[in-house]
Amino acid sequence: MTRSRQLHLGAFMRPVSLHTGAWRFPGAAPDANFNFALIKRFAQRLEAARFDAFFMADHLAVLNMPIDTLKRSHTVTSFEPMTLLSALAAVTERLGLIATSSTTFDEPYHVARRFASLDHLSGGRAGWNLVTTSNPEAARNFGLDEHVEHGERYHRAREFYDVVTGLWDSWADDAFVRDVERGVYFEPEKLHVLDHKGEHLSVRGPLNIARPVQGWPVVVQAGSSEAGRQLAAETADAVFTAQPNLAEGKRFYADVKARLEPLGRARDHLKILPGAFVVVGSSLDEAQHKRAELDRYVHYDSGIASLSIALGHDVSHLDPDGPLPEIPESNASRSARQRVVDWAREEGLTVRQLAQRIGGYSGLEMVGTPVSIADQMEQWLVEEGSDGFNVMFPFLPGGLDDFVDQVVPELQRRGIFRREYEGSTLREHLGLPRPANRFFAA
Amino acid sequence: MTRSRQLHLGAFMRPVSLHTGAWRFPGAAPDANFNFALIKRFAQRLEAARFDAFFMADHLAVLNMPIDTLKRSHTVTSFEPMTLLSALAAVTERLGLIATSSTTFDEPYHVARRFASLDHLSGGRAGWNLVTTSNPEAARNFGLDEHVEHGERYHRAREFYDVVTGLWDSWADDAFVRDVERGVYFEPEKLHVLDHKGEHLSVRGPLNIARPVQGWPVVVQAGSSEAGRQLAAETADAVFTAQPNLAEGKRFYADVKARLEPLGRARDHLKILPGAFVVVGSSLDEAQHKRAELDRYVHYDSGIASLSIALGHDVSHLDPDGPLPEIPESNASRSARQRVVDWAREEGLTVRQLAQRIGGYSGLEMVGTPVSIADQMEQWLVEEGSDGFNVMFPFLPGGLDDFVDQVVPELQRRGIFRREYEGSTLREHLGLPRPANRFFAA
Repeated sequence: MTRSRQLHLGAFMRPVSLHTGAWRFPGAAPDANFNFALIKRFAQRLEAARFDAFFMADHLAVLNMPIDTLKRSHTVTSFEPMTLLSALAAVTERLGLIATSSTTFDEPYHVARRFASLDHLSGGRAGWNLVTTSNPEAARNFGLDEHVEHGERYHRAREFYDVVTGLWDSWADDAFVRDVERGVYFEPEKLHVLDHKGEHLSVRGPLNIARPVQGWPVVVQAGSSEAGRQLAAETADAVFTAQPNLAEGKRFYADVKARLEPLGRARDHLKILPGAFVVVGSSLDEAQHKRAELDRYVHYDSGIASLSIALGHDVSHLDPDGPLPEIPESNASRSARQRVVDWAREEGLTVRQLAQRIGGYSGLEMVGTPVSIADQMEQWLVEEGSDGFNVMFPFLPGGLDDFVDQVVPELQRRGIFRREYEGSTLREHLGLPRPANRFFAA
Repeated sequence: MTRSRQLHLGAFMRPVSLHTGAWRFPGAAPDANFNFALIKRFAQRLEAARFDAFFMADHLAVLNMPIDTLKRSHTVTSFEPMTLLSALAAVTERLGLIATSSTTFDEPYHVARRFASLDHLSGGRAGWNLVTTSNPEAARNFGLDEHVEHGERYHRAREFYDVVTGLWDSWADDAFVRDVERGVYFEPEKLHVLDHKGEHLSVRGPLNIARPVQGWPVVVQAGSSEAGRQLAAETADAVFTAQPNLAEGKRFYADVKARLEPLGRARDHLKILPGAFVVVGSSLDEAQHKRAELDRYVHYDSGIASLSIALGHDVSHLDPDGPLPEIPESNASRSARQRVVDWAREEGLTVRQLAQRIGGYSGLEMVGTPVSIADQMEQWLVEEGSDGFNVMFPFLPGGLDDFVDQVVPELQRRGIFRREYEGSTLREHLGLPRPANRFFAA
């Protein structure tokens, strides 16, 4: 008997919530950003529920918003991901630990070394979310006035990846013999000096840390552009996507998976994991009410600004309590715009409600009962829209507890999510091979 | 009654040992570099003994040695300090956590953010050992063929320090009100945008993390040059020095402390902590025998290379088992050279024994009984050679256990080392004030 394909679940975490108003929700923890005791509890609950990974969201700047919007945002202060995940490594046993790190504003030697260190500290549970960073506010924190151009960023990212993985291969897996008798700590022929000199980077090596437990930490990417998809197909172990519905999810899935074979990669060796904002209720009504309650905490100023962006028109002059009028076509993404308009029509939302919905969280959502959410997840899996999800909890700790206590058991009952970890590394959880060392035969 | 001046004790750690041959010593843990369980035990023992801090040694490269020497060195592979100390933060409660970070090969936004994060994760126990990095091997790992010139490095370091501390002051201590009712997460007037544009650095800010628990993490420096001393007097909370004996220690202490008053700084607010390699025995003979045994594990090739450097002459042709002949004057530091020659004469060492002594560890050492070591430490304290020590254990875990079990109780009995922590932050352990925020009155 073949086992059904299995869902992979990451928890995409901002310790307060991804939802901009959630910190005000009754029972939420507005200070979770600086409450390591709470985050530790979250991670341990995710591990008890057999999640693949804890995935820490990140930015290299305070987000660029007008101060009157910014002052309402809990995103302005957060633990730095590598330090946070290292601390979590010490208080968990199996949970994967994925951090974002930029190829535009960091050095490959630092990045290779830190992820190798996290991988050793955690016994093989590290993941690197490779981002090229498009935020101009970040550029200004790193001595650049203008942001680096998109194509240039991708070229550097590709070279950066080659250097980082090359540094991870500095030592053969069995280099460190620690032979007390002979006084030989490592075998010299098992050390490789990279000596990389490329277009963007010049890095000698070797890395001053043994090859990671996983060979290479898991490499995650998030780009959806043509260049991003191709970079992912060439280099990623997992893609964190933002397709807003199953139809778009299936198109993305088919496109990226089709890029693998020509590159000599197995279809199963790149996992596609869209983000999903999951709100659980005991009935559909209750879940929808919970989502609406959350949105009520989004300040109108923040919401209307987000709505204007989504529609491609300034709609701040509209009556907040009236319905959304006809809005002319614009430069905004047509599918995103249509989705907003459809929401307003189908649910009879006022401009205020719509603004708060968009301002709260506007990506893929699953709002319903444990059974209906499991149905949706199973459908994405069976119809090849994804290999699992990066789950976003609407508020912490309640939203996490709802998912872990109610949705996970339903997925397990259906045989599409593990009841026990079978391996100990993140690669093993995700069903990914351990990369061979390019400089040394196994 | 005034209490005696108190010793401050840091543990300057390479998880195997600072001594190059110690990994071969019976009972040593040659794999401690990659054994987090062991390092965690070390940290917890240090905390139980009320040490001020765990100080992680670091380099940004595999050290530049001939491969036949390098292959005998346990320094080639080590955890990265920020990830290691973050993991230790999760399994300790009071112990300070000091990591080295370079101003030459890193970005101030990253450095400010990571140390702030470690400070929040640990409840105010982070320390930044600010180094300018003079290792040319490191330069080549960061895209530079030539090493940055000394004066240039110090100018950048000074500006880097200003930017990092400026970023730490991005938010007033009471900026985050998290007012659920009003929907205000922080008070906008309590946010400062640094907008630094200097000779070497351009950094906008603000930092995307709240002001550290300690205001600023403790800043440690190690430079002994004129520029290094001045930078320390202007900016450091503690200096990690390498004076090889009490006479030189007193000169350094007097020099650096005298620089404080003209800068408007209190004499007590800069702690001077030399490194001390401590070997404990139940008799002087036993301790010296232990040191000699350790040195026996230093490979002759490594030792003779170190001895040649110390003497300023290639002495590799000498009979290893003969005495040290007269060696002409050279460019080597006279005091270091004289010390080596004195050792050979006073202890009747052969060339081999001398080479292994120098190759093993050649800085300040305290080799003796718990009482004689406590005598030495007390003398340094009373005669103003130091405010304490960065203790280096000859081998782990035995050397650490000896110090904790035998020397610490003797220091406590004399009333010059704490029996309990009185505060919870590293600043409190060191008796240092919490810096005011330069942009906001308290």
